[in-house]
Amino acid sequence: MNLVVDADRVLADLKELHERHGGPGGARRLAWSEDWLAAREWFKGKLAELDGVTVDRDEAGNIWAELPGANDDGGFVIVGSHIDAVPSGGWLDGCLGVMAALGVMRALAGSGVRPPVTVRLVDWADEEGARFGRSLLGSSAAAGTLDPDDVRDLRDAKGTRLQDALAACDVDLDGAGAAHSRLEGALAYLELHIEQGPVLLDTGRLASAVSGTFGDERYLITFKGQSAHAGSTPMRLRKDSLAAAATAALEIREVGIRHDGVCTVGAMTADPGVITAIAGSTEMMLDLRHLDADALATMLEENLDACRRAADQFDCEVSHRRVFGATPTPFHPKLVQLARGAVDAAGGGDGDPIPSGPLHDATEIGRLVPTVMIFAQSDPPLSHTAIEDSPEEALRVAIEAYGRTVGGALDAVAAGELQEARA
Amino acid sequence: MNLVVDADRVLADLKELHERHGGPGGARRLAWSEDWLAAREWFKGKLAELDGVTVDRDEAGNIWAELPGANDDGGFVIVGSHIDAVPSGGWLDGCLGVMAALGVMRALAGSGVRPPVTVRLVDWADEEGARFGRSLLGSSAAAGTLDPDDVRDLRDAKGTRLQDALAACDVDLDGAGAAHSRLEGALAYLELHIEQGPVLLDTGRLASAVSGTFGDERYLITFKGQSAHAGSTPMRLRKDSLAAAATAALEIREVGIRHDGVCTVGAMTADPGVITAIAGSTEMMLDLRHLDADALATMLEENLDACRRAADQFDCEVSHRRVFGATPTPFHPKLVQLARGAVDAAGGGDGDPIPSGPLHDATEIGRLVPTVMIFAQSDPPLSHTAIEDSPEEALRVAIEAYGRTVGGALDAVAAGELQEARA
Repeated sequence: MNLVVDADRVLADLKELHERHGGPGGARRLAWSEDWLAAREWFKGKLAELDGVTVDRDEAGNIWAELPGANDDGGFVIVGSHIDAVPSGGWLDGCLGVMAALGVMRALAGSGVRPPVTVRLVDWADEEGARFGRSLLGSSAAAGTLDPDDVRDLRDAKGTRLQDALAACDVDLDGAGAAHSRLEGALAYLELHIEQGPVLLDTGRLASAVSGTFGDERYLITFKGQSAHAGSTPMRLRKDSLAAAATAALEIREVGIRHDGVCTVGAMTADPGVITAIAGSTEMMLDLRHLDADALATMLEENLDACRRAADQFDCEVSHRRVFGATPTPFHPKLVQLARGAVDAAGGGDGDPIPSGPLHDATEIGRLVPTVMIFAQSDPPLSHTAIEDSPEEALRVAIEAYGRTVGGALDAVAAGELQEARA
Repeated sequence: MNLVVDADRVLADLKELHERHGGPGGARRLAWSEDWLAAREWFKGKLAELDGVTVDRDEAGNIWAELPGANDDGGFVIVGSHIDAVPSGGWLDGCLGVMAALGVMRALAGSGVRPPVTVRLVDWADEEGARFGRSLLGSSAAAGTLDPDDVRDLRDAKGTRLQDALAACDVDLDGAGAAHSRLEGALAYLELHIEQGPVLLDTGRLASAVSGTFGDERYLITFKGQSAHAGSTPMRLRKDSLAAAATAALEIREVGIRHDGVCTVGAMTADPGVITAIAGSTEMMLDLRHLDADALATMLEENLDACRRAADQFDCEVSHRRVFGATPTPFHPKLVQLARGAVDAAGGGDGDPIPSGPLHDATEIGRLVPTVMIFAQSDPPLSHTAIEDSPEEALRVAIEAYGRTVGGALDAVAAGELQEARA
């Protein structure tokens, strides 16, 4: 179906939200805060204006709205994203997708015709994890990958436990997994987001279909050599842990380039870390990502090999500790194809779908439900900062393409083309 | 003259000092502390036992003892080192040289014969700079290179000003430069010290003449790139300041090897320094040392060139700030030759003199007075730690060689061979 989202209205909603719960200092919508709750009340008010749309909340704190479709066999399509933000974040991250989804519901509700299948809108709770360090909380509860024991005792900067912060918002952590039932019958999940990176800006594209989200491996690597006096120790007798780490970091960079993934050494901490001493030990932070699980595994192996070789070269020892892992989530080929065509039709050109380095709620949902994302160009290509922005033209193209993709997805499910849902 | 120092007595004095003002937890002789003052009182008691030796203190807090020589034309030879220590330091750093100098005075005073020229012993004040960060305080006051305004407001961990700590020990910082008069007529300065490094241990030598102390340049180097998301930023679009720093550090290492000096990058601090971000800026600590001033200048130039090239390679900018500099101090060729022969005669073998990477009081005095040092092997090759040690055999060889070198220097000055003193 031809689903035309009113981009002016979406932009107006985004600006109103930013005026109320953001401003020059950036977003004020930290998950589980009063500001966040107030922003969601404002949002529910918008939903309440739509004919035939009902609103409720699931056990994990995710807000759902539903517009029944002509076919009542229980299948439905989901549109949405998240309203929560990092402190002093931008005006687009997450809420662009929620306001565009609101635009979808508005277009459908205002058409006077029921959509071919039911459409549900979701505002996921705590995508950012900015307060307790655990991202994708609401969507992982729905996907069934959240273990309450893993997060119960996480504390915010003031010492408040995650479990208690949720309880204060009437969410029982131990019951959050019941939100999984919301995905029963889900036939597609579609999310619009800003890119948060430089690829579209660099290639002059305003929007793109997204091919999936990268898998991610995070390690702390420790090189141990021998601390010694910088003046009294000849070069040939050194066991320089920082030189070993530097050598490994540069080779790790080449691994990322070779496999068309990303490998990042974001920090090195030397001990004793003074100007007159050779570093006795150096800890290195490593993050590596790839859309393909095999390539990610190969990169990891080559990275750890590079660390071992560098340690050998400088007479050091090396050890490593895994601190995080997420598997790659390729999106649904049919939906990616639809989204690519929709971007083209909206004036964004016919470019290859790009992968997403950052995780999104679509990462969790994409494991269970046919999923696709559309990205709008970021300029500056930065996010999680108050200067986050996108050209209005890029937002318009992306919003139109999102509406077209949802319309195409509704047609596809009506035609029985996406009924392989796994939830 | 054949000057035989009683090595047993020197070792006994060292052990007594360590028992009184050290112990299993390490040395307790931080400059300007009560422990340090008490250790010096104990030392003055040792000097008071010697016939014909007078003791006083100069305006910078250095302790001097004098044994008049047969020739009273005002020329004299200086022996000594420092009794102060870093917190929890070892039992040899500094005090080996002071107790060996005491051994020299004891041998001379006990011989019943006046030495050919006057001999002065010195215990320099605050060589370590461990409390206020300014090394070589007493010897630089004597050498005329201490500017009171540079150090007046330095504070210790408790907030006490250096000037006030000195005043509490009856030293007026502004008058400290008057200690310079103590070098008028100085014909030679001889200092025994442990190596504090691995060269003698690595080559199986027990002791060595020292050819001089390295010049030292210390810089903070800052690479500025662009902080960005580790997941959303492709390798080709990165301005990775940590990769630039790593590249520079490895090339800087090669510069040190190529010029037979030492170049050390002891720390890198990345900002924001988190696992999910490319480092937007990275500050690197650089220390480089060489015995030859031209080679030091060349190494510095090549190091800064390496930083510029690395910055260019990763699309970063680089800036640098000098935080410390000391010129090389080559020791006196005639005295180095004497010391080399003395080490051989004492059973240490005929090895090439080695340079000292660490600074010593001899660095300051060597700019003005013909100077030489002798090093004893360190095993483990570490210092500034309670586990600092040297084989007793190495200490005996070094002490004997030191006595022989002082004897040779007295003969040389009596023969008019060192009268080019510049003080």
